[in-house]
Amino acid sequence: MNVLVINCGSSSLKYQLIDSDSENVLASGLCERIGIDGRFTFKPENGEKYTIDSEMKDHTDAIKIVLDALIDPKTGVIRELSQIGAVGHRVVHGGEKFAKSVVITKEVIKAIEECNDLAPLHNPANLIGIDACQKALPGVPMAAVFDTAFHQTMPKKAYTYGVPDRYYEDYKVRRYGFHGTSHSFVSKRLIELAGLDRNNSKVIVCHLGNGSSITAVKNGESVDTSMGLTPLEGVPMGTRSGNLDPAIIEFIANKENRTISEVMNILNKESGVLGISGGVSSDFRDLDQASSEGNEKAANALDVFAYNVAKVVGGYVAAMNGVDAIAFTAGVGENHLGIRRRIMSYLGYLGVESNEETMGIRGEEVEISTKDSKVKVFVVPTNEELAIARETLALI
Amino acid sequence: MNVLVINCGSSSLKYQLIDSDSENVLASGLCERIGIDGRFTFKPENGEKYTIDSEMKDHTDAIKIVLDALIDPKTGVIRELSQIGAVGHRVVHGGEKFAKSVVITKEVIKAIEECNDLAPLHNPANLIGIDACQKALPGVPMAAVFDTAFHQTMPKKAYTYGVPDRYYEDYKVRRYGFHGTSHSFVSKRLIELAGLDRNNSKVIVCHLGNGSSITAVKNGESVDTSMGLTPLEGVPMGTRSGNLDPAIIEFIANKENRTISEVMNILNKESGVLGISGGVSSDFRDLDQASSEGNEKAANALDVFAYNVAKVVGGYVAAMNGVDAIAFTAGVGENHLGIRRRIMSYLGYLGVESNEETMGIRGEEVEISTKDSKVKVFVVPTNEELAIARETLALI
Repeated sequence: MNVLVINCGSSSLKYQLIDSDSENVLASGLCERIGIDGRFTFKPENGEKYTIDSEMKDHTDAIKIVLDALIDPKTGVIRELSQIGAVGHRVVHGGEKFAKSVVITKEVIKAIEECNDLAPLHNPANLIGIDACQKALPGVPMAAVFDTAFHQTMPKKAYTYGVPDRYYEDYKVRRYGFHGTSHSFVSKRLIELAGLDRNNSKVIVCHLGNGSSITAVKNGESVDTSMGLTPLEGVPMGTRSGNLDPAIIEFIANKENRTISEVMNILNKESGVLGISGGVSSDFRDLDQASSEGNEKAANALDVFAYNVAKVVGGYVAAMNGVDAIAFTAGVGENHLGIRRRIMSYLGYLGVESNEETMGIRGEEVEISTKDSKVKVFVVPTNEELAIARETLALI
Repeated sequence: MNVLVINCGSSSLKYQLIDSDSENVLASGLCERIGIDGRFTFKPENGEKYTIDSEMKDHTDAIKIVLDALIDPKTGVIRELSQIGAVGHRVVHGGEKFAKSVVITKEVIKAIEECNDLAPLHNPANLIGIDACQKALPGVPMAAVFDTAFHQTMPKKAYTYGVPDRYYEDYKVRRYGFHGTSHSFVSKRLIELAGLDRNNSKVIVCHLGNGSSITAVKNGESVDTSMGLTPLEGVPMGTRSGNLDPAIIEFIANKENRTISEVMNILNKESGVLGISGGVSSDFRDLDQASSEGNEKAANALDVFAYNVAKVVGGYVAAMNGVDAIAFTAGVGENHLGIRRRIMSYLGYLGVESNEETMGIRGEEVEISTKDSKVKVFVVPTNEELAIARETLALI
């Protein structure tokens, strides 16, 4: 069966059509600048990628363009829309309402709406995408796959913040965590690769990309994760600050006469390694380059990032009282040799030994610890779209 | 020599007169409600503690009352003021200007003033105390002992936040850390007790009280600590939140139509275990009591506290790539059996073994790990006043 995977942002829509038998990607691409002017990218499995300007006044327009391209007689990959058997939607925030993926019904849509509060930029966009697909593909079963769902197994001690309890009772302020689809996908594969018994396993997944989060997975279940109420928390990221002394927000607001929302914007968009490096880049390749040319701030940004990831990993080893295996995934985790090596250099006390022969391999599933390493370390490429397609297929 | 140790708050002044030869406390006490009405407490070494209402319009008044009590013919402990050989002042924030204690000069006072920005409630009060003592004891040498100084050895990767670099360049936004006098005092003693070579040692000090901070000490120097720009960061404390998703501040401000400064006030005064427990108490004894009576929120507050301390300890083991010994100190660390046991229960992977025979001892220097424990764990009572007196003596 062909499963269409949809990931809607406020002015964008990413899609993949996946053949669930072969797990091949038949086509993939992106609608951008929806509601502004519109740009459409399409990459068929066995053809050339193309990008065209195409007016999209809303997400319904965007979905129509995607579906037209999929069945285009020349460059399309299916003959007719009836060959789309299901649609899987990435939904960012499921709050405490969703501990797993679900088939989308009217009640589900209502419950997602009730979580809008927790992800005011993302959930409404996800709902618009669902609505647009329902109009364009009536009768096709659809599933919602939540970024937060995998983390709903966290114990209370891990999701409780040190704030007045009424904020949890009244507004559901707690740690939720994100990248759940990736952490679930990668932790499952890591358990297989390391030859562990799921029911007696302690693993840590380092999803390091432009957004980064780290998850402790005990017996196959998330028991702690570094992102929180929102994806701003955790280690410093490409442009996001991660954890801070909360007093810094007031300090900066007072110093620069800024509103909270202005400071939050800086913490989301001008901070992280971009900020630490003094504006060099949010891209780790650029930081490497600058660092090798003697830029000390870029070098410090790489240091700070690796150091903070190592501290979170160390904290999760304590949280689980041990660890059997560690995985690196996502853009930086899969490709950045220097960051992996640096993080692993902090973990010698656990018996982690780097394998310099495989350490430099990029973007592939590979063991980067030695045979004798007490804790196994792997690179496991993540594939959130495939994970969403699998979850969707399992539900319908 | 007798050293007078002074710790000034905005409306309070704590003092101890210490005989530096015997290290006995000749007298100790407190001035409260300075500038409001005034209450004075005095406890001589070999006499009864007394408390009297006594008008204090400012800190100069308060110092006079302290000095009069010290030389009081009936209840005093010295004959004349010339028997005070030196004064040691606790100063909260030394910024990057002070990496150790210093003799107070005009230049030092100016430099402390320049740090007021970083501790707007505390440093001005400390300066008032210095000024009042200089007036009352002209010619007596005085030293400033900073809460932040011990942590000035932290490497850049540990003190850098994930915010734009210009906030460090322009406003000195970075991690400073606090409780430095305690962490220095306790880590030195821990290294002795554990029989370590200071120059080849990795220890962690858990200063757990109403305010809590944890410090990684490598080769006798602080290399990381959990408090930050201000004492709000780190683990949840008595009433302080500790680390949060920074987005929570905006979330609460919007939900309740509050200013940043109102939210900060909540995070400083209504949060931590007090907040988590739904208002039961900031005192761990009350939480124990409530928890044993079935109050789930109080039980959760204890869980969250111990869990977060354990995670920070685990992170610092990674930061140092190992650990030789761990100390618990301060009110909760010295006295709370349950919290110590709970934190240690996370650390079995390090080879930490609790000694149940000594675990219940309170407020004394004692080893609470077994003989075979790979990592030695001690309770080391802190004594900030004695540490300040020693530092002062060493300088003059």
